[in-house]
Amino acid sequence: MIELNFSSLAGRLRRSEIRELLKLTLKPDTISFGGGLPDPAIFPYEAVQTASTRAIKERGNQALQYSPTEGDPFLKEQLAQFMQRQGDMANPENMLVVSSSQQGLDLLAKIFIDPGDPVIVERPTYVGTIQAFRAFGPDFQGVEMDYEGMIPDQLERIIIRLLDGGRKPKFIYTIPDFQNPSGITLSLERRKRVLEIASKYNLLIVEDSPYRELRFKGAVLPSLYSMDTDGRVLLMKTFSKIFCPGFRIGWMVGPAPVIDKMVVAKQGTDLCTSAFTSILAGYLLKGGHLEKQIEISKALYARKADTMLRALERFMPAADGLSWSKPDGGMFLWLTLPEYMDTVEMIKDAVELKVAYVVGVGFFYDGSGCNCMRLNYSYPTEEQIVLGIERLSHLIKTRLRNKDQEVSRDLAVL
Amino acid sequence: MIELNFSSLAGRLRRSEIRELLKLTLKPDTISFGGGLPDPAIFPYEAVQTASTRAIKERGNQALQYSPTEGDPFLKEQLAQFMQRQGDMANPENMLVVSSSQQGLDLLAKIFIDPGDPVIVERPTYVGTIQAFRAFGPDFQGVEMDYEGMIPDQLERIIIRLLDGGRKPKFIYTIPDFQNPSGITLSLERRKRVLEIASKYNLLIVEDSPYRELRFKGAVLPSLYSMDTDGRVLLMKTFSKIFCPGFRIGWMVGPAPVIDKMVVAKQGTDLCTSAFTSILAGYLLKGGHLEKQIEISKALYARKADTMLRALERFMPAADGLSWSKPDGGMFLWLTLPEYMDTVEMIKDAVELKVAYVVGVGFFYDGSGCNCMRLNYSYPTEEQIVLGIERLSHLIKTRLRNKDQEVSRDLAVL
Repeated sequence: MIELNFSSLAGRLRRSEIRELLKLTLKPDTISFGGGLPDPAIFPYEAVQTASTRAIKERGNQALQYSPTEGDPFLKEQLAQFMQRQGDMANPENMLVVSSSQQGLDLLAKIFIDPGDPVIVERPTYVGTIQAFRAFGPDFQGVEMDYEGMIPDQLERIIIRLLDGGRKPKFIYTIPDFQNPSGITLSLERRKRVLEIASKYNLLIVEDSPYRELRFKGAVLPSLYSMDTDGRVLLMKTFSKIFCPGFRIGWMVGPAPVIDKMVVAKQGTDLCTSAFTSILAGYLLKGGHLEKQIEISKALYARKADTMLRALERFMPAADGLSWSKPDGGMFLWLTLPEYMDTVEMIKDAVELKVAYVVGVGFFYDGSGCNCMRLNYSYPTEEQIVLGIERLSHLIKTRLRNKDQEVSRDLAVL
Repeated sequence: MIELNFSSLAGRLRRSEIRELLKLTLKPDTISFGGGLPDPAIFPYEAVQTASTRAIKERGNQALQYSPTEGDPFLKEQLAQFMQRQGDMANPENMLVVSSSQQGLDLLAKIFIDPGDPVIVERPTYVGTIQAFRAFGPDFQGVEMDYEGMIPDQLERIIIRLLDGGRKPKFIYTIPDFQNPSGITLSLERRKRVLEIASKYNLLIVEDSPYRELRFKGAVLPSLYSMDTDGRVLLMKTFSKIFCPGFRIGWMVGPAPVIDKMVVAKQGTDLCTSAFTSILAGYLLKGGHLEKQIEISKALYARKADTMLRALERFMPAADGLSWSKPDGGMFLWLTLPEYMDTVEMIKDAVELKVAYVVGVGFFYDGSGCNCMRLNYSYPTEEQIVLGIERLSHLIKTRLRNKDQEVSRDLAVL
């Protein structure tokens, strides 16, 4: 038997709860509110096919070859123009194309995190972020959120406490729009405050923004990146949610020294992103297909979110401590159950009832969130959403300690 | 001005010499023996186009979606069958599809290397390996090579010395077939010895094998992976050299605990490899296009290698210490110049003469190899090869200390 001696990084790796859950959802008939998958029913198959034929015909020798580590120049130009139309000015010089924004998180961790380094995140935050960062052993410092996003006063208190201890946080990581997992959006007032605080303490902000274009309600808020006047925001974007995940194309813009360092890190990490999918993506952008796809996605996800919210209203028992977020965009909402409930324990019954969700604990770095779950509405059909929420409500009702409330709500709904 | 505080990993990152050199070669008319690029003239454009149309038509909803971290099951099945035809038995269960074999190197470093850990490599070795590993701060232990590959006695001495110091090497990394950069192949006798030594000291072998199928001369040698009876060889493969780099598809097979750990590491690194290029690759394999492409590549590279070897014979001066490897396959040969020459210093004149190569020092972790260069023959045309080698010979001749020898050789050639 071969003796293996893994690294300390390997010792910090943990299998993702989301991933394990997705395995369960492979069972037929299970309704999955699990993964963060776009609805394949609206993928622009024809446009992709046309673009791929064109990529081979017109730029085949580049599409099948290595590409520059920074990214295909034509794609970068198209991305800069797209961003401009979205209100974000970007210079292709300070842009790095990445093989998914998950790779961006890995590169970020690589260039910033030594074991024990404090990094500031939201509570809860994206599970993939925790996973990418955790490998490098950071000291996660979490800022609580309410329905307006992270709480700036708490952010500042954490920074002060760290600085008092002689420890400067490496960066503030936030998902301001339709956050994963909570679906919550950082209000305009708070955006200003977060920027002020970052400026006051001279900190880098990492703005992870996979969902921003998927707003189906309310006014568009400016990105932190566009509000920033100091060059302290690194903006992470991806094709995965607004077009399709299959290309593995993301991009980052921000301070030149950060982008520069990431380019060198990317060389050793995967040399370059696929020239083939990069050129495809460039053609699709140029042809206006990304914007078309965003409109189609928004219309569909608006309907699905609405369906889920109405189903929750209809089926969920009234109970102290039971609430959910009401997203204005994106793909997720966050369900908080009474504190005595444990969504990990509930999984086995959920599998029986053929409904899947992601356990809240996956979105906390410290084992919190046991009474929470993330629900995705972009992937299931509307019919499945209604049926799945009904199934979930059964799960929850059987665990309620105050049965009276449940009954009264059920009657009210009838 | 924002204050950035990078990690110790970031401090170990260095820009690749190859990359900087490739920038120089962007000048028109420069003949490049630089990068390790396949010849785009033989890319199977039509087959790729047909496969991509089919991928969208038949598996569009999967091709544009996320794929399993381990890899697309259909692709894995096709890869296992391809390997079997090449004499390597593999179970798709113990296989991980990676987004280029460069990513495999990054994952390997992540799960094995803590700062100061000894890892054994060949001298010289692939620059991308040095880059990927170096980020994690290993103690490189290099085994010298001769024209039969790494020298087993020296390998054993290094292991004993490390073990005597209480330090077990994490693995032995080797590129046994048509090594990058040297073009040298590990002989059958030495393969046996390397396996024996690894077995004696219970060490993992990492067999990086991007070129093995590109043998255009001599008998095929079994892979270390196929000779291994203990399950101690991790085999790394890639589409980049035998088909095309633009898909960013590689794969790894080997000990289950290693593959397992890498799967978890890959989750945080990029979630999954592109489903689109994975499905394309699967169809191309199934249709026999990979094997066809290998035959076409071999025929072309055989001719180009021969052209380069003949040009070297014709143009290079006879000088003590001037020699080159004679590869039986792959894409590279290694030119060793008299020790008083410095290929880094020569770069500026090479740019003037419009010929590019990769400086030898890039393939050593310790600044050795100053009098060496790697020459690629797969990318330039045969005409360029002749012209480029002639230009190189001028560069070298002007630096020769013993002019007499040069003259006599020139006369002999005429």
